[in-house]
Amino acid sequence: MLDSFDQEFDHNEVRPTFYIGQHDSTRSETLTDLQYGQVLNSGFSFITTPITNEHFHDRVLNLLKASLLDAKNNEQAGSILDPVVPPLTTEDTNLFPGTYTSGLVAYSSPWIDLCSSNHIISSISRQVLNLEVSYANFCGVRSIIVPGPREDSIKIGNSQGIAQYARAIHEAFSVGTRVSIIIHIPMYREPSLEEKVPLLSLFDESASETPSKEKEIDLFSAWDSWHVIRTVCEYDARLFVALKIPRVLPEKELQTRWFSEPLQYLTFGPQTFQTNKAGHPSLSHHHQDLIFTYMRLKNAPYFLLCDVGPEVQADSDPKQITSADFPTLVEAAAQHTASGSGSSNFQGQNGYSAYLRHLERHQEPLDDLEQTTLTGFQDWLQSPLQPLSDNLESVTYEVFEGDPVKYFQYEMAIAAALKEWDTLGKPKSGPDGEVVIAVAGSGRGPLVTRALRASESTGVPVRVWAVEKNPNAYVYLLRQNQREWNGRVTVVKTDMRAWKGPLLSPPSDPPVYGKVDILVSELLGSFADNELSPECLDGIQHVLAPGSGISIPASYTAHASPISSPRIHADIRQRAAAADANAFDTPWVVRLFAIDFVAAKGVPDHPRFQQAWEFAHPLPKATMDAVEARRAGGVAGGGGGSMAGAVGANDHNARHCCMTFVCRTRGVVHGLAGYFEAVLYESKTGANGEEEGRGMVDGKVELSTLPDLIQRKSKDMISWFPIFFPLKEPLYFPPDTELEVSMWRQTDDAKVWYEWMVEAFMWVSPSQRVKVGGSELCSSRKVACLL
Amino acid sequence: MLDSFDQEFDHNEVRPTFYIGQHDSTRSETLTDLQYGQVLNSGFSFITTPITNEHFHDRVLNLLKASLLDAKNNEQAGSILDPVVPPLTTEDTNLFPGTYTSGLVAYSSPWIDLCSSNHIISSISRQVLNLEVSYANFCGVRSIIVPGPREDSIKIGNSQGIAQYARAIHEAFSVGTRVSIIIHIPMYREPSLEEKVPLLSLFDESASETPSKEKEIDLFSAWDSWHVIRTVCEYDARLFVALKIPRVLPEKELQTRWFSEPLQYLTFGPQTFQTNKAGHPSLSHHHQDLIFTYMRLKNAPYFLLCDVGPEVQADSDPKQITSADFPTLVEAAAQHTASGSGSSNFQGQNGYSAYLRHLERHQEPLDDLEQTTLTGFQDWLQSPLQPLSDNLESVTYEVFEGDPVKYFQYEMAIAAALKEWDTLGKPKSGPDGEVVIAVAGSGRGPLVTRALRASESTGVPVRVWAVEKNPNAYVYLLRQNQREWNGRVTVVKTDMRAWKGPLLSPPSDPPVYGKVDILVSELLGSFADNELSPECLDGIQHVLAPGSGISIPASYTAHASPISSPRIHADIRQRAAAADANAFDTPWVVRLFAIDFVAAKGVPDHPRFQQAWEFAHPLPKATMDAVEARRAGGVAGGGGGSMAGAVGANDHNARHCCMTFVCRTRGVVHGLAGYFEAVLYESKTGANGEEEGRGMVDGKVELSTLPDLIQRKSKDMISWFPIFFPLKEPLYFPPDTELEVSMWRQTDDAKVWYEWMVEAFMWVSPSQRVKVGGSELCSSRKVACLL
Repeated sequence: MLDSFDQEFDHNEVRPTFYIGQHDSTRSETLTDLQYGQVLNSGFSFITTPITNEHFHDRVLNLLKASLLDAKNNEQAGSILDPVVPPLTTEDTNLFPGTYTSGLVAYSSPWIDLCSSNHIISSISRQVLNLEVSYANFCGVRSIIVPGPREDSIKIGNSQGIAQYARAIHEAFSVGTRVSIIIHIPMYREPSLEEKVPLLSLFDESASETPSKEKEIDLFSAWDSWHVIRTVCEYDARLFVALKIPRVLPEKELQTRWFSEPLQYLTFGPQTFQTNKAGHPSLSHHHQDLIFTYMRLKNAPYFLLCDVGPEVQADSDPKQITSADFPTLVEAAAQHTASGSGSSNFQGQNGYSAYLRHLERHQEPLDDLEQTTLTGFQDWLQSPLQPLSDNLESVTYEVFEGDPVKYFQYEMAIAAALKEWDTLGKPKSGPDGEVVIAVAGSGRGPLVTRALRASESTGVPVRVWAVEKNPNAYVYLLRQNQREWNGRVTVVKTDMRAWKGPLLSPPSDPPVYGKVDILVSELLGSFADNELSPECLDGIQHVLAPGSGISIPASYTAHASPISSPRIHADIRQRAAAADANAFDTPWVVRLFAIDFVAAKGVPDHPRFQQAWEFAHPLPKATMDAVEARRAGGVAGGGGGSMAGAVGANDHNARHCCMTFVCRTRGVVHGLAGYFEAVLYESKTGANGEEEGRGMVDGKVELSTLPDLIQRKSKDMISWFPIFFPLKEPLYFPPDTELEVSMWRQTDDAKVWYEWMVEAFMWVSPSQRVKVGGSELCSSRKVACLL
Repeated sequence: MLDSFDQEFDHNEVRPTFYIGQHDSTRSETLTDLQYGQVLNSGFSFITTPITNEHFHDRVLNLLKASLLDAKNNEQAGSILDPVVPPLTTEDTNLFPGTYTSGLVAYSSPWIDLCSSNHIISSISRQVLNLEVSYANFCGVRSIIVPGPREDSIKIGNSQGIAQYARAIHEAFSVGTRVSIIIHIPMYREPSLEEKVPLLSLFDESASETPSKEKEIDLFSAWDSWHVIRTVCEYDARLFVALKIPRVLPEKELQTRWFSEPLQYLTFGPQTFQTNKAGHPSLSHHHQDLIFTYMRLKNAPYFLLCDVGPEVQADSDPKQITSADFPTLVEAAAQHTASGSGSSNFQGQNGYSAYLRHLERHQEPLDDLEQTTLTGFQDWLQSPLQPLSDNLESVTYEVFEGDPVKYFQYEMAIAAALKEWDTLGKPKSGPDGEVVIAVAGSGRGPLVTRALRASESTGVPVRVWAVEKNPNAYVYLLRQNQREWNGRVTVVKTDMRAWKGPLLSPPSDPPVYGKVDILVSELLGSFADNELSPECLDGIQHVLAPGSGISIPASYTAHASPISSPRIHADIRQRAAAADANAFDTPWVVRLFAIDFVAAKGVPDHPRFQQAWEFAHPLPKATMDAVEARRAGGVAGGGGGSMAGAVGANDHNARHCCMTFVCRTRGVVHGLAGYFEAVLYESKTGANGEEEGRGMVDGKVELSTLPDLIQRKSKDMISWFPIFFPLKEPLYFPPDTELEVSMWRQTDDAKVWYEWMVEAFMWVSPSQRVKVGGSELCSSRKVACLL
């Protein structure tokens, strides 16, 4: 279904492709083969088709009229005989299996009303839907758009109709075993948006005659309906949204909400567009921004233009179609073939479609990283590493080393530390008065290289030790030392927790070990401490020169924010049902993208991103002594009060926090997004002009993955994706909710895991806050990190 | 642990037994063997013991002081080294494994504070709890009471402390692998109820000094805390409540709420009691009612009297203990042995305990049914029958027949119908002008007997046919006809849906079948139609005389109400985890008892019990013709629009409803309780004096299992227990919530099942209702009733 419109673009610049389809709500017949082929060549990539025709419609209407009459004449309870819609015949449909059928998008009959409170109407509607879904599925159609719940049959605030609708969709999935079902729903419900009363309801005499009083617009009510539908459908992977884009865009919160949902189509009617000075259709800058944002999704939505031109007469000869305000699709196709698709060529095709093509060309091109890596990683769940037991492969190191920002920051941190070493007159542990640097967990040596460079740039002599447990990486390090580092580095193969420190030469018996001045490590995970950096650094801290030795990083903090992430939830749900019983217990590393932050921005004391806890290195000597005493047993050892009977040697690395987030609009939380910040080095003498701007901000060299700070502190850093702590059951919350998030970092000496829970509270008066819901206590104990 | 106090009672009258224990909050040592034995003989059935002693307490306090000092002197982030409580030594405890240890109730140290916002205090508290639970579990103790979250460390409206507390209890279950943990919690939090500040918190200088401002009492906050605890503990079957009974009882809603929870102990302090004219302790009538109600539970709570006498000095010679206001337990025991346990003998034992014994004797005795059957069936889940495919055993019929009320009502209905047959001048189908009665599904014949009796009492001659598919019951019917019915009955072995009607004699070829005037059946289930009564009666309706034939029952309705049922939820949860993957999809037949109706009583338009739907028999001829046409195929047959591709021959028995319930207080809904009503016969000529009161009410003979109507319409009827439609996830809701319940009766020609869902809405202003939560769509399709 690729179209070939954009052949004239610079192919070094890649932009998301627009797939533009056409829907005509008055079309009652499937296009013929010939017509369909022409449409594909006319500026549209796909087209919708009704499943049944007017003949069927008439039959159903007659059935309904007869049934309503029956019901009226015979109101005895228990005698309700809902009509059964008879099966389709060849006269009821023009859709048949064909070579292109899988490329068609079916649009189910819009005259049904699944929400009707009249049992006969809702029953007939459900049957019509099932018949159509079943038949389209048989024919090989892959996508069926179903009109959303009709506002005129939903009383605002009454969930009855929506539940009924949702249940019918759920049933349709069991009838159409392969199709996707796409709910056509407005971004928000405008009182005037629903232009037609559903035909079936016209015959319900008992229905109220005054459906549409002017009411205040409830911006989130359409989203709310969708949320009920997909909840009842258990987040089915075949359920999507076709989102009607309104003429007036709503507040950002609603735009980002929909951004997180499984958008299959963005649909536009003529009323969505403005007319520009030249008389052509165009969209506001807000609309353009929305489209450009949505098109950054890995599974970018398609465009569906609805009723933007005269309908095609399915059974007539295409050549006889005449144009009214716009050329027909067929004429457009013919003109397009003749004139090509020039960038401002509106004559050759439908004006609306031409305008979208224009927008397509004006998108920001994808940068290199987006093209190669980032887009593919969107919302893709990675199992976290077992950092202490898994040995990485070379290619994995290579990916880590591919981040220039991170290593630049490390080099700046080491350089700043070396410079201040002299300024502050700190003692140096090297045998010849050098500053001793040890890189703990050197991998293939990128930090060793940076340490040597920092020494050169500052002129402070160093002695560098590289400590690495991976025997394969060790070989690589030895080779690097020969070829790149001129033998200036001492390479040691050991688990850093077992390293005794720099062996002094000449060798003696017993051996004598020196101390380390600067311990450099890159053990941080997406949530800072989740790859056991605290435990590893505790284990090697004894090599640091007492009093003067420092760690780079000096400290790090974990941060969290509750998010709505329906697509990720659906993914985890599928994994949990299929193979991975621990899918909901796993904190996943994932490039969160199609998500919505549910916490409001800029609330005093309750920011969107909040710090969970902090770790700093090195620990005070008294702390280390106590830890050692516990590990060794003795007076303070062997306590049964610690977790699971452990001695408590790691209890100082346990953490707990409670954070309060404020949500303005109603929504649903699927889990917690986790980020981190690290202070690699903090200047003791304050910021200086030279280093500020070269990695240093306000006297600190930092790393940050926080969405609102990453640009300032470590722009373009890509080494870490966020972490996601899932909730088993999505937690719905009303407007003006406070979400209380409790998190724990737990340890029992042998492993480390997290626990988390979310509770929702609502202020019902200025002095009264009531609980409205809460999650279970979630725990990653079953997939804990092993020490 | 049975005590032998009540030997003088009339043993024909059985009352629930009171097990009364004693707890002394100042006791710091386990009683010696001798003391313990004496206590058992002194009016108490059990006694609590601390797990650790003052020595341990002192050690922990010293550790805490040192740690707080450490933390103050060393506030560097990342250096937090929480103290580890060292293991227990023989000096820390007087509790050791012994013959009576499993009879002891351990009471964990009340001076800990698991909720503390000071990390050191909460960590030490958690460790102390784990040490104690682990050790008591080792010693063989079976129950440990843990003081509930302390109000003075919970900021009202802040959930942090509770979550922390709940998490600690959850952890304790993994440490104490066999013990039950019982949370000691007040019925509601009174500002003055917490008499002591937790000792550990005294040392926290950072804590606010003004903990207890006078606030409005939030009646449900203690229940709320409990709800969080048991949710975090995943409804563990080893988790219970020890409920502190206050001096002033709260509103009924809170009393019934606690009634539904797993109550292990009711605890009373001296402040709970009043003093009567004679100077003895006594309880208000409200308290008595509460106790009498709670003691009707199958697992009735035990009593725990707290601090009602001077403490026992564990290491001193029992004989040297002197009494202050009350005799010691040991003295009481000695006196009791001497004087016996006379009904008003307050001298021999503790006055509080004596008063409870007095109440024990003044309970309403259990009636016969309670003794033999009903108590045992409380909250016991029965899988629903497969009525059409299972053949019942004789003993099951016998149970059904044991209900005198139900068959009396049937007899009255038949009699009323027979009398009116003449009055109304209706045609009779019998060959000799008798009224023809067919009992469809006769079983062992109780309705046949009643039909014959009704004929005798009214003098209206009848001809009775008994139709039964169970070949074994058929034999029994033939024998009954010989021995009891004098051969007046014609017995036919067939599925009622295949019966062609009364075969006219003499036999002819082809055979000629007559018609039935009154079709009597007892096919109703707990939810009326859940054992397929509508489908069965449809199948036999063709034998009824057109126009004049009637069905007894004439109609029936299903009713529902949302309930809180934590014990049943825990039970289903266990089944779902263990063996029965469909446990949450099954509508269970269960004698609901330890439940709380969450919907408020007496709300106009939104009663606590609401009708879901109705069935009436016979169906109009046009309906039956249409059904027949569908089943046979033809013009209206074979529709793909019906459920799962069925022809829709049973669609007229599908139903849907939406009900709105109003909840005043906050709570949690675990599922829907289902009931039914049936109109066996409704008089066409109006009520008459004779029959009114003899089964007839307002001209109708009815059956009802509705809690608020059963007494009026079918008093003492026990044939049906309610049905329970569970929710997978309990749905929490805030005060003043509206619960919207959607239910469906679904069918696909081959089977019948139910679907149900609950959504919660809240009025945040007089005009705005917001959703606060909702359940999934639940379905019994996997365990559907087969046609």
